[in-house]
Amino acid sequence: MQIGLVGLGKMGGNMRTRLRKAGHTVVGYDFNPDLTDVPSLAAMVAELGTDGSAKVVWVMVPAGEPTRSTVAELKELLGEGDLVVDGGNSKYTDDAINAASLAEKGIGFVDCGVSGGVWGLENGYALMYGGAPEDIAKVQPAFDALKPEEGGAVHAGPTPGAGHFAKMVHNGIEYAMMQAYAEGWELLEKVDIVENVPAIFESWRHGTVIRSWLLDLLTEALEDDEHLAQLRGYADDSGEGRWTVEAAIENAVPMHVIASSLFARVTSRQDDSPAMKAIAAMRNQFGGHAVHTEPPPGGEANPDA
Amino acid sequence: MQIGLVGLGKMGGNMRTRLRKAGHTVVGYDFNPDLTDVPSLAAMVAELGTDGSAKVVWVMVPAGEPTRSTVAELKELLGEGDLVVDGGNSKYTDDAINAASLAEKGIGFVDCGVSGGVWGLENGYALMYGGAPEDIAKVQPAFDALKPEEGGAVHAGPTPGAGHFAKMVHNGIEYAMMQAYAEGWELLEKVDIVENVPAIFESWRHGTVIRSWLLDLLTEALEDDEHLAQLRGYADDSGEGRWTVEAAIENAVPMHVIASSLFARVTSRQDDSPAMKAIAAMRNQFGGHAVHTEPPPGGEANPDA
Amino acid sequence: MQIGLVGLGKMGGNMRTRLRKAGHTVVGYDFNPDLTDVPSLAAMVAELGTDGSAKVVWVMVPAGEPTRSTVAELKELLGEGDLVVDGGNSKYTDDAINAASLAEKGIGFVDCGVSGGVWGLENGYALMYGGAPEDIAKVQPAFDALKPEEGGAVHAGPTPGAGHFAKMVHNGIEYAMMQAYAEGWELLEKVDIVENVPAIFESWRHGTVIRSWLLDLLTEALEDDEHLAQLRGYADDSGEGRWTVEAAIENAVPMHVIASSLFARVTSRQDDSPAMKAIAAMRNQFGGHAVHTEPPPGGEANPDA
Amino acid sequence: MQIGLVGLGKMGGNMRTRLRKAGHTVVGYDFNPDLTDVPSLAAMVAELGTDGSAKVVWVMVPAGEPTRSTVAELKELLGEGDLVVDGGNSKYTDDAINAASLAEKGIGFVDCGVSGGVWGLENGYALMYGGAPEDIAKVQPAFDALKPEEGGAVHAGPTPGAGHFAKMVHNGIEYAMMQAYAEGWELLEKVDIVENVPAIFESWRHGTVIRSWLLDLLTEALEDDEHLAQLRGYADDSGEGRWTVEAAIENAVPMHVIASSLFARVTSRQDDSPAMKAIAAMRNQFGGHAVHTEPPPGGEANPDA
Repeated sequence: MQIGLVGLGKMGGNMRTRLRKAGHTVVGYDFNPDLTDVPSLAAMVAELGTDGSAKVVWVMVPAGEPTRSTVAELKELLGEGDLVVDGGNSKYTDDAINAASLAEKGIGFVDCGVSGGVWGLENGYALMYGGAPEDIAKVQPAFDALKPEEGGAVHAGPTPGAGHFAKMVHNGIEYAMMQAYAEGWELLEKVDIVENVPAIFESWRHGTVIRSWLLDLLTEALEDDEHLAQLRGYADDSGEGRWTVEAAIENAVPMHVIASSLFARVTSRQDDSPAMKAIAAMRNQFGGHAVHTEPPPGGEANPDA
Repeated sequence: MQIGLVGLGKMGGNMRTRLRKAGHTVVGYDFNPDLTDVPSLAAMVAELGTDGSAKVVWVMVPAGEPTRSTVAELKELLGEGDLVVDGGNSKYTDDAINAASLAEKGIGFVDCGVSGGVWGLENGYALMYGGAPEDIAKVQPAFDALKPEEGGAVHAGPTPGAGHFAKMVHNGIEYAMMQAYAEGWELLEKVDIVENVPAIFESWRHGTVIRSWLLDLLTEALEDDEHLAQLRGYADDSGEGRWTVEAAIENAVPMHVIASSLFARVTSRQDDSPAMKAIAAMRNQFGGHAVHTEPPPGGEANPDA
Repeated sequence: MQIGLVGLGKMGGNMRTRLRKAGHTVVGYDFNPDLTDVPSLAAMVAELGTDGSAKVVWVMVPAGEPTRSTVAELKELLGEGDLVVDGGNSKYTDDAINAASLAEKGIGFVDCGVSGGVWGLENGYALMYGGAPEDIAKVQPAFDALKPEEGGAVHAGPTPGAGHFAKMVHNGIEYAMMQAYAEGWELLEKVDIVENVPAIFESWRHGTVIRSWLLDLLTEALEDDEHLAQLRGYADDSGEGRWTVEAAIENAVPMHVIASSLFARVTSRQDDSPAMKAIAAMRNQFGGHAVHTEPPPGGEANPDA
Repeated sequence: MQIGLVGLGKMGGNMRTRLRKAGHTVVGYDFNPDLTDVPSLAAMVAELGTDGSAKVVWVMVPAGEPTRSTVAELKELLGEGDLVVDGGNSKYTDDAINAASLAEKGIGFVDCGVSGGVWGLENGYALMYGGAPEDIAKVQPAFDALKPEEGGAVHAGPTPGAGHFAKMVHNGIEYAMMQAYAEGWELLEKVDIVENVPAIFESWRHGTVIRSWLLDLLTEALEDDEHLAQLRGYADDSGEGRWTVEAAIENAVPMHVIASSLFARVTSRQDDSPAMKAIAAMRNQFGGHAVHTEPPPGGEANPDA
């Protein structure tokens, strides 16, 4: 099929490659002149539909304003029966808005959560998509080319946002799984009883109930750098973890673990914790705790009394 | 090799089968006359070492008192150069005590955490063991038979308890991973946007970063019972989750997520929450909240003010 | 001063009483004919400003739609220089919208978070308000009458929503403080070492660092019902706890404790936990755990392996 | 009464002063020659009981080894009918051991949790004590002198450790209350809507449901240093917070909030988080996330996919 692809970063660039390998005609557009195939969105659209089929444009740019403005531009350039696929990490509530806007001109809309990282190029990308069956049919050949050989693609529902919602929850789960391994690793590192922590992780990859791809990845990292000495304990979070917890709050779903995983990432980015300053202030006022001074010679019985 | 196996429950029974399939001579003992091969521990020990090698007894009974008393009995029955392997879920701090006690008679000790569930029979058991290399050598053929074809066995260190410590952390990680999927599933179930939740889980098994064996298992369960309507939201916890959090506290390792996973299990076993009664009591005193009555006709502006 | 008061539930009704005791003329309106002073909002507005001053209407109805529609009606009824005070528990982001809408007709707007429960009538209400100083001046006499004798009233800032934002955070803190006492109480109740738990709480009211009004309230409740046997462990949550956590997420503030307190309330309202069903499902698939059946006769070594 | 007091740090020193003000004869001992009244424990004991009453020694030294060794020495020096009071922050499980050891010589034992900080000198100390009524009677005059004018003293039960258990839970509650205010303060500081955060805290001291002594203390601190710029976000924890969570785990009491408060303190003392290094490692392996580098020019659609 012919497909336009907007956004040729790490993800989009690899997806272009995988689609072309499958024999599809991809017209890629990116702000970056070193990456783009065409000079403009309009030029990209002009090259689509030359085989008489509907023009299909896959948007792969950051969520929020970049996606919104790209969709707005495409609304001008496309027409009745064409299709926009949002494959970025948009918030699921944005999809209904984009779908409704495009529908004003008879343009279809499919939202699609994509997982796969740098591994997707070779192994395929997991796809979770939402939208009307007739719209999905128009992009199905691309889905078939992008997805892993076996499974990995699912129609989450006809409501716009169903795909991004599923992808959002996927990322929330990912946060907590990562945090699970991370806490376990820190404990193994800290206590002086297990001699070779990377060997433990390697062994867990076979036969245990906690074997997973994330475990494979962590094991790989530990093989290169046993104590992760080259890394800082710093983790960004994308919108999806935040939205997962917000959706949980809104829908009265208890979410202790995913929420804590999110907050752990937030904490990791703080140079000093304001909350803990407040703790220090109260302790100080209460107990006359001289922060960072030594206890009196006779010792101190009730440091927190 | 010849090996005694004490405890022929679901795990022990399957391990006997797998060891025998590998050609080893297993003398199994269990309280249950339907399961046991011999009438007593003494009878079991008498059948070992007939090939001139050291007597090796693998203990596979519940942690705590059952393991302690079994080790005490074996101390009477075994002698210099023999070996006891504790393959149960003992607390790692118990191992030094058992090792020291057996050492008084020259009996060796190896602790071994075993993972694999009902799947171990066919796929092999993951093994994490601690102890002196010369002791481990005596049980190595059994390890080789029990472990998965590839990997899955690791010498965690020479200190008694190293194996159980690694297995304990493994279970702590397991708790939080399960909780991660569980929270995500509850959110997907609750919100009316994704049509076929089991299909989402199935799709995640390929290409996503959260693919894992636990995901396979949950997917399997959802195929049989889409909304898990046949199950109660009730989960026991073994000692290992608790010990993981205790070890974290003792060693100053932050463990928000594994601790919360443990507390979620505890909560699941409460018919009514005492803590939440206290919350209700305070709200009542403060706001005159009539629990379970309707708001006044004009509405109520500040229910929690 | 003359003041209109919309919403005469438990809070609004007591506030009317306190305002009248201070000598103010209050025209109260409520849907409920047994509570209202006038038959309609229009009738209420007609009775205001008869002394030549600006008409001031205090809205004390539930957040969201009820407040929005009341403000919309008042926009029709009031004019240039008049003032609407939103004293309900509105989300702080609603205030800018209401303020802007009223400003189209030159009507001023003040948002005011109110705390005090059923105790406010006698002790006064804590007030946190946001808005322009000239608007606040119009309602100042009412603030002076409502607030406690000493302190308890604060101008949070000129931005609409500043008052509700402060009140929202106040409620988030309240959730976690309640949860702190609740968890401590459950532990004291559970362990069989302290004989008279209510006496412990009573003693904490003097000299300890955890003395507080909430402690006073819980102590009171325990005096009436030592084990809180008359209560169910069930707690509603208002919007403010949820918005606090959402604001934390949005602003990258770690909030483990307030979030967990919120989730504990949510859990308390679930008959059965979907998430824990998923845990049970995974345990079942993995270990062949027959939920609620007994372990095999020989015991089970690895219930969670 | 005559009373020996071992440990004259910040707490013990002030308690000596308060006891003397009440007319009691206090013989204080401390390692520090500048603080001590007598050169040795033996010299202290020799000065007690000169009025014919039982010798009573109040131990006010750090929990664990210092308390244990002091009790052991006192066992040598005291005799039948004498009394040791452990007023430090001992773990409640230590008390049964100390009580049993002293009982071998007929020496009584009372455990007493003490709260009050530097404020206790003037306001009195809250006291929670455990032990036999006849033993408590011997130290009652000291309790009466130390406690606040009204209330603040409670006999938690006859079992040794009942007092320390109550005090331990008190400290657990304290951790979570502090954390509640701290999280709320951080959010108020972070969001640019409330102009004068210290004024908000000051206002909460009157009429609100979250008024408390800790709030008074935090308000005081904010008056001196509006943004707590002079403090580092660093908080120690004493044993009592840890033991509270351990007791919760052991007794199957869900304790999300107190546990998280403890872990927040632990995190505050880490220069870099090992767990978050593991997170960074997994993200890196998965997404090729170049930690601390800029996104590619065209933006990046799926930073966490």
